Amino acid sequence: MREITLNTPLDMHLHLRDDEMLKLVAPLTSNTFSGAVVMPNLVPPVTTKEAVVAYKKRIVNAIGDDKFEPFMTLFFQKYTKEFLEDVKDEILAIKLYPAGITTNSESGISTIDSKELKETLDAMIELDIPLCVHGETNGFVMDREKEFMPVYEALAKDFPKLKIIMEHITTKDAVDLLDKHDNLYATITLQHLLITLDDVAGGMLKPHLFCKPIAKRYEDRDALLKVALQGHPKVMFGSDSAPHPKHAKEACGCAAGVFTSPIALQVLVDLFDKNDKLENLSNFVSDNAFKVYNINPPKKQITLIEKEFLVPSSYSSETQNVVPMFSDEVLPWSIKK
Amino acid sequence: MREITLNTPLDMHLHLRDDEMLKLVAPLTSNTFSGAVVMPNLVPPVTTKEAVVAYKKRIVNAIGDDKFEPFMTLFFQKYTKEFLEDVKDEILAIKLYPAGITTNSESGISTIDSKELKETLDAMIELDIPLCVHGETNGFVMDREKEFMPVYEALAKDFPKLKIIMEHITTKDAVDLLDKHDNLYATITLQHLLITLDDVAGGMLKPHLFCKPIAKRYEDRDALLKVALQGHPKVMFGSDSAPHPKHAKEACGCAAGVFTSPIALQVLVDLFDKNDKLENLSNFVSDNAFKVYNINPPKKQITLIEKEFLVPSSYSSETQNVVPMFSDEVLPWSIKK
Repeated sequence: MREITLNTPLDMHLHLRDDEMLKLVAPLTSNTFSGAVVMPNLVPPVTTKEAVVAYKKRIVNAIGDDKFEPFMTLFFQKYTKEFLEDVKDEILAIKLYPAGITTNSESGISTIDSKELKETLDAMIELDIPLCVHGETNGFVMDREKEFMPVYEALAKDFPKLKIIMEHITTKDAVDLLDKHDNLYATITLQHLLITLDDVAGGMLKPHLFCKPIAKRYEDRDALLKVALQGHPKVMFGSDSAPHPKHAKEACGCAAGVFTSPIALQVLVDLFDKNDKLENLSNFVSDNAFKVYNINPPKKQITLIEKEFLVPSSYSSETQNVVPMFSDEVLPWSIKK
Repeated sequence: MREITLNTPLDMHLHLRDDEMLKLVAPLTSNTFSGAVVMPNLVPPVTTKEAVVAYKKRIVNAIGDDKFEPFMTLFFQKYTKEFLEDVKDEILAIKLYPAGITTNSESGISTIDSKELKETLDAMIELDIPLCVHGETNGFVMDREKEFMPVYEALAKDFPKLKIIMEHITTKDAVDLLDKHDNLYATITLQHLLITLDDVAGGMLKPHLFCKPIAKRYEDRDALLKVALQGHPKVMFGSDSAPHPKHAKEACGCAAGVFTSPIALQVLVDLFDKNDKLENLSNFVSDNAFKVYNINPPKKQITLIEKEFLVPSSYSSETQNVVPMFSDEVLPWSIKK
């Protein structure tokens, strides 16, 4: 059976939530990843040094070993330079959410204006803190990312030394923007390499494939897949794996988010293998992130083996129950124990 | 309190299903409508005179009075003229489904080709049987109706004497086509006058607003609303009310269909009233259909009163449970008892 070993795989966009859910899902990432960028959209959002340090401690406790690095982020607000100097060593990046755009983003930024945000962004440049952005307007659901492109362009031009990561991009428009500005980078999720709106709502409605930004058109998916498969140096894997309790996904108003942490590497190996691009996978899941973020996470070797893996119906603890993508389906690759 | 009386309201596109579901939902239509065009996509589909007659009998039994006319339809297949002559008096129209496009449409037509279907369509013209069409391709979910427009155009041109009803139209493209061909007509549902994809998947995912064709963009909804409100003579109300058991709507793979029968008139009165177009409502829900189909359903007066109506969480019988649109919400108009 064929095997492939990944060195120090990273998930550059992850939701770990808190409390009992954190305890369930954090080990499902640290089992197979060396590190992950942890999003700060808790309730209340992570906006102070104390909150960052305390959240990191809860994550480390949930994981229970030191072979995984949670790269912490702050929830973007208008911070002073003094504040950022003080918190700098505890965080990898700051995550900007337009207000009300996704789960727990109510206290985000209403108007993304370069003048308005200049003090904070200049301080971030000086302190070498990258800006991660959830790039959606509050327009029509299929247009939200496309409509956000001028905001990315303005930020990229007005702050040419600011590292801007376009998080979980879903459109050809965002892919096309990548190479137009030196300081724009992107993460791409697993599901956006695989599905379109047809998979979510083209046949039966599939709540477990519903996420924000919503999956788009075939030409969008193909553009994302192309840059991922070529290991484009400005593109990093970020699962955006977002656990919600099963009952919240299968309710009348289903929460947005796809839970992929425990199956992401198995599916990525299969995807890169089927496209005959396995040689570029380490760029996508490790090397590009090292360079973009200049990080040095704990070394970890994960070996995948071409042996069938039946994805569990759900991952659960005494109080939590989360349905992963591909639940009850058989994947061709598994993690070698 | 204001009152408005509707004379002989009609639902020109309705799913009544069968068995226990039929018994639950049929009275919820006959309570407020004089008649309805009943769709033939049962399992197996309604394709024989015997099946039409038997299904009509089950509907009449479920309703239990003679103040409601179920206008029966045949599931389109390549029928001979002899067959159609024999069945003619039992049906109002024939409904064409592209194969596999919606609930129970597996035995539909794979290629809609004028030459291929000529014998049947010529016989329908001769016998004055209108053709109702579910106009979607199997393309990307947001493009399926738009992509079907050339099929409508070809049918309209090749069979200028065939009455073609574009069922449950959802796009500006279909509205624009209406006036280009004398023999094209349309039905519009309640939900497509009200919602867009944003309501289905722009915030939380809403399975009870998921239907086929899926709700589209704002410009589409506005185009539909415009022709409905003006009582455009080629446009008829057809609810496409499609009951599915609650568990099938809130499952991992949710079935397509919005259940609107018991609240349709209340919402339509409110919608036309708010837009100051109440004078055109009878065209939309009665008069246009009389003229297009040349029918004479039982007279029925339904009076609505401007008095709050709390929509039930669900309508249920011993074995069935269906969630209506606007469940648990308060509507400003109710049916006067």
